[in-house]
Amino acid sequence: MSMLLIRHVRPMGAAPADVLVQDGRIAALGPALHAAAGCAVEEGGGALLLPGLVEGHTHLDKTLWGMDWYHNEVGTRLIDRIDNERAFRQASGHDAAAQSLALARAFLARGTTRLRTHVDIDTQAGLRHLEGVLQTRDTMQALQQIQIVAFPQSGLLGRPGTAELLDQAIARGADVLGGLDPCAIDGDPVRSLDALFAIAERRGCPLDIHLHEPGAMGAFSLDLILARTAALGMQGKVAISHGFCLGDLPERECEALLARMAALGVVLVTSAPPSRSVPPLMACRRAGVTVLGGNDGIRDTWTPYGSPDMLERAMLIGLRYNLRRDDEIEVALDCVTHAGARSLRFEAYGLAPDCRADLVLVDAQTVAEAVVARPVRRLVVAGGRIVARDGALLSDAVPV
Amino acid sequence: MSMLLIRHVRPMGAAPADVLVQDGRIAALGPALHAAAGCAVEEGGGALLLPGLVEGHTHLDKTLWGMDWYHNEVGTRLIDRIDNERAFRQASGHDAAAQSLALARAFLARGTTRLRTHVDIDTQAGLRHLEGVLQTRDTMQALQQIQIVAFPQSGLLGRPGTAELLDQAIARGADVLGGLDPCAIDGDPVRSLDALFAIAERRGCPLDIHLHEPGAMGAFSLDLILARTAALGMQGKVAISHGFCLGDLPERECEALLARMAALGVVLVTSAPPSRSVPPLMACRRAGVTVLGGNDGIRDTWTPYGSPDMLERAMLIGLRYNLRRDDEIEVALDCVTHAGARSLRFEAYGLAPDCRADLVLVDAQTVAEAVVARPVRRLVVAGGRIVARDGALLSDAVPV
Repeated sequence: MSMLLIRHVRPMGAAPADVLVQDGRIAALGPALHAAAGCAVEEGGGALLLPGLVEGHTHLDKTLWGMDWYHNEVGTRLIDRIDNERAFRQASGHDAAAQSLALARAFLARGTTRLRTHVDIDTQAGLRHLEGVLQTRDTMQALQQIQIVAFPQSGLLGRPGTAELLDQAIARGADVLGGLDPCAIDGDPVRSLDALFAIAERRGCPLDIHLHEPGAMGAFSLDLILARTAALGMQGKVAISHGFCLGDLPERECEALLARMAALGVVLVTSAPPSRSVPPLMACRRAGVTVLGGNDGIRDTWTPYGSPDMLERAMLIGLRYNLRRDDEIEVALDCVTHAGARSLRFEAYGLAPDCRADLVLVDAQTVAEAVVARPVRRLVVAGGRIVARDGALLSDAVPV
Repeated sequence: MSMLLIRHVRPMGAAPADVLVQDGRIAALGPALHAAAGCAVEEGGGALLLPGLVEGHTHLDKTLWGMDWYHNEVGTRLIDRIDNERAFRQASGHDAAAQSLALARAFLARGTTRLRTHVDIDTQAGLRHLEGVLQTRDTMQALQQIQIVAFPQSGLLGRPGTAELLDQAIARGADVLGGLDPCAIDGDPVRSLDALFAIAERRGCPLDIHLHEPGAMGAFSLDLILARTAALGMQGKVAISHGFCLGDLPERECEALLARMAALGVVLVTSAPPSRSVPPLMACRRAGVTVLGGNDGIRDTWTPYGSPDMLERAMLIGLRYNLRRDDEIEVALDCVTHAGARSLRFEAYGLAPDCRADLVLVDAQTVAEAVVARPVRRLVVAGGRIVARDGALLSDAVPV
């Protein structure tokens, strides 16, 4: 029975408290806790305590993290990027197992203990990338919970056999079924979504659909998605990633869609891109639609940007939505902590007894300062184990 | 005669070279340079070499950098922020000398050797904040060139006596005359701009005008500014900060304004805010209008965001303009290096013989990687002197 007492930390900036960790869970949280014999003790020194951070949308399988710099000369259309990547991965022998593990470890060093990643499934690679990320999920299991989305990056309808591969991916162990722009990529939204929902229904798995489509087109696709979510009783099991269209629509139209999403428990995942329209964060929350944050791709052939630091993502959310007041910045943090965990159904999450002991200590006076300054993680505890100090993973605590 | 040889660095990512520094200037740059007797030698180890970074628009005098966290509960209108700040500074005894020095030092540690800062001038504080920043400018003189803009943060017309104070500020040593939203803040654009240009004409100083006004209102003010720039022969002496309106206008209208700006040598300074319209960067450059980058405020009562790291600002410019290709990201870096220095008339700038030896070494394969990864500055040389290593200032090289 492993025990750890962390003394004198400020949970979310509140009054100082101690945290007792036992068997991977928070056993107690309060002032002046007692350390039993044999209990390891860490001095928190008044650091701010956050729960493990949550990455809601990334692509571990396609990252070039730690590899030589990739000279990006790719065209600007979505289809240029898709085709370029598929060809690059085929030609370069890019290793999804090694790369996803490298990035997952980088996330852990910076305090991310729960993570949803979309893995490319296509007729060229088959389930190869999935196999790599499944390996990483197994390797990290005790420390970092990874949800895998089987994602048809090259479209569902364009390449016959893709639907079957997605179905196999779920059978093989992917947690969630992914979708992509039923109008703009698949060109046949009804047939595309029917095929997608049919797999989800058969496998009883949740859905996470990339919806980049802007304005009226995106709203049209969203309407079709919501109709199927209701018809198949998939309340609480559908996530929309990006949802740029919600940032384009007139207020009334947007609010009507948000009301339907709230009623169906459909959540929104945003990377808060500075160069695109984004769903209206505060209006979403007022309407009862949970918004969570994610990087999207990190250092890959699509984009050189992104970082495995979810405090940086919270800062970018803050900047995108012009959140300047402390209470607003706490909303940005919520997108990469509680809102993320709740809507992606990560269990036993939080800073309370019985929660999994996923803890992050930073030198910051307030939650807002933690988001804005993104201090080096002084200590990261994952599943009850100390895994990183001062931003660096402990080699003996983390699998390679 | 001080000499320094830096061996094996890659200027802007090019082939490895050595840099010889003599009497504060770059004496030579090329392969296998010879170190004379008594010359200090630094091993660059193949690091990427950048010229000193350029901050084109910040507010050193109002920062809370290094102070206790400021709980921001301020209203969202521009006038709320202006009034809150003036009252806070009056009540708290906020020290512009100490604070501007703290932030200037933080900029230097991260490789910024040229900097333009706007200093609040108003009838309540008089020239108090200016005196503080003048002190910092003197202190940093050998290492960091600071241009001071005398800035009417509370408006020029609303508080009688402000124009006289601005005039005195220039006489006292401010380098540039600042302006602010002649419609939205002053409410009388013709009288406001006439008063402003009259001071500039009398003092023969350049202008840098904050123009937050959106759409047609901003375009109207800009038109008045350009007309006065032409009439007074102030070609090459006017900068527009923010210029959000240029991001709102129909393409034709925008291009007509850009053509006039280019002909008059009027430059644009952007912080590339993710939550506002921004001038179209690439269209500006095509039209011959120089765009440079700046933080705007850093950690002050207006905003908790911002960072004295101009590579981070370049990254935010890259994100705002969706610059993903390597050649595009080089444009983002240009905004905080050459374009900044050229348009603000910082002299002897660059990586060439006779330029001031302001050098930044980072571990990155390419310029794009330096922008995206923002590595710790391995070495910073300012005015020929080594001032920082691994992100930390050398205590004996930098005044306190």
